[in-house]
Amino acid sequence: MSSTIKQPRITLVGAGPGDIELITLKGLKAIQSADVILYDALVNEELLKEAPNAKYFFVGKRKGFKALKQDEINKLMAEQAIQHGHVVRLKGGDSFVFGRGYEEIQHAHLFGIPTSVVPGISSSIAVPALAGIPVTHRGISNSFTVITATLSDGSLNPEIKQLPNLNGTFVILMGLSKINEIAEVFISSGREKEAFGIISNGSLENQNVVIGRAETIVQMVEQKRVKAPATIVIGEVVKFALNNLKNQSILSFN
Amino acid sequence: MSSTIKQPRITLVGAGPGDIELITLKGLKAIQSADVILYDALVNEELLKEAPNAKYFFVGKRKGFKALKQDEINKLMAEQAIQHGHVVRLKGGDSFVFGRGYEEIQHAHLFGIPTSVVPGISSSIAVPALAGIPVTHRGISNSFTVITATLSDGSLNPEIKQLPNLNGTFVILMGLSKINEIAEVFISSGREKEAFGIISNGSLENQNVVIGRAETIVQMVEQKRVKAPATIVIGEVVKFALNNLKNQSILSFN
Repeated sequence: MSSTIKQPRITLVGAGPGDIELITLKGLKAIQSADVILYDALVNEELLKEAPNAKYFFVGKRKGFKALKQDEINKLMAEQAIQHGHVVRLKGGDSFVFGRGYEEIQHAHLFGIPTSVVPGISSSIAVPALAGIPVTHRGISNSFTVITATLSDGSLNPEIKQLPNLNGTFVILMGLSKINEIAEVFISSGREKEAFGIISNGSLENQNVVIGRAETIVQMVEQKRVKAPATIVIGEVVKFALNNLKNQSILSFN
Repeated sequence: MSSTIKQPRITLVGAGPGDIELITLKGLKAIQSADVILYDALVNEELLKEAPNAKYFFVGKRKGFKALKQDEINKLMAEQAIQHGHVVRLKGGDSFVFGRGYEEIQHAHLFGIPTSVVPGISSSIAVPALAGIPVTHRGISNSFTVITATLSDGSLNPEIKQLPNLNGTFVILMGLSKINEIAEVFISSGREKEAFGIISNGSLENQNVVIGRAETIVQMVEQKRVKAPATIVIGEVVKFALNNLKNQSILSFN
């Protein structure tokens, strides 16, 4: 152990969707210079090997139970920075896409701890891409909306009901447990034929893609026993996944 | 030159928003194994040094003139893969966020050339992040919509007019030349106080951030002579950029 007093600082690093090589060079360098790493459930733990001398804390959620609440994470992160120097807060995807990253920055700033952000590959764009679905495509989709299905109190995000008024692609995160309600929003708006894609284990070897329509997707999720976490993609571009010959796990589109 | 016949293949690589270290490890490896690289105007050219023996083609747009049209790029890409082996198609940001990446994949597949995709850090999320703006924040923004202001024929994307019906954050790309029309859409919907942020040279040393409201942003863009390309962010989260003490270029919020 060095006796040098280190300056506290915190770097929020997005680790990407799961594939270890989808971290950025800048994110990897931050990990390699970390004294302490706080990491979430969706982070590829192989990344921790890049910082063999760092202290690690798992602060994520497993089987529905949170290791730590958000205010406990905030507190731990600031304490560790003050005691040990450089804390890397490593999150799946990108820290600002439903990652509560800005709450952590606000807490750190209360203690005058400097922060920086290294963006990560967001699952919202990359998970569809790696399943053969471009979120935009000229003449078909000129926009995409990324939305959480579940608010922090567990209820359905009411903005889901506004989606059928828009064109473009919708990417719904934290939505598998609410797939019935989401499908119903589209069915009751006369868009029962809308294409739905559900991707679990996105970017990983065991990636699984289920493709259906608003009117069939609930039954397909039950039949195929799709497991959370999963990314839901809605819109015409979903049909491109049917051409993705490399992906053997695409199921029927009825 | 090796006389070995190489298998043609094409890898679409997202280079990220500009900072060279915001490429992924997987993207860098693809570049290092490239025989030919086709790159766009927004790609950091330092990345080409990672493939000193590859052939390069600049296929982007500079000062409004396109080096090549999309069908010429498609053709060149397939020809080069058949002649030389591994073609890396290197684009700014992510290939599927208004990058026309899927059109290139469709063309390659006509010739039976296998393709793969390496996602990139999308400017749509990372440019706001690096200006201190999280696209989502609990209790403030539970969704974000990424939209192009300009269709391929140069006209305003009509979906822009639907945005004031939604909550959440809006990220508008290719929109600086249409800032008058975009601001007017919000003003005429009674949202004249809506926060607008405009970021040019995002993620780079000379990043510039202008923050205003729907009713003031057009005048500010003129006064500060903001240059394209720029990312427009609209919504409550934009106000967080005012707290971003490290950024000296934030202008007045009236």
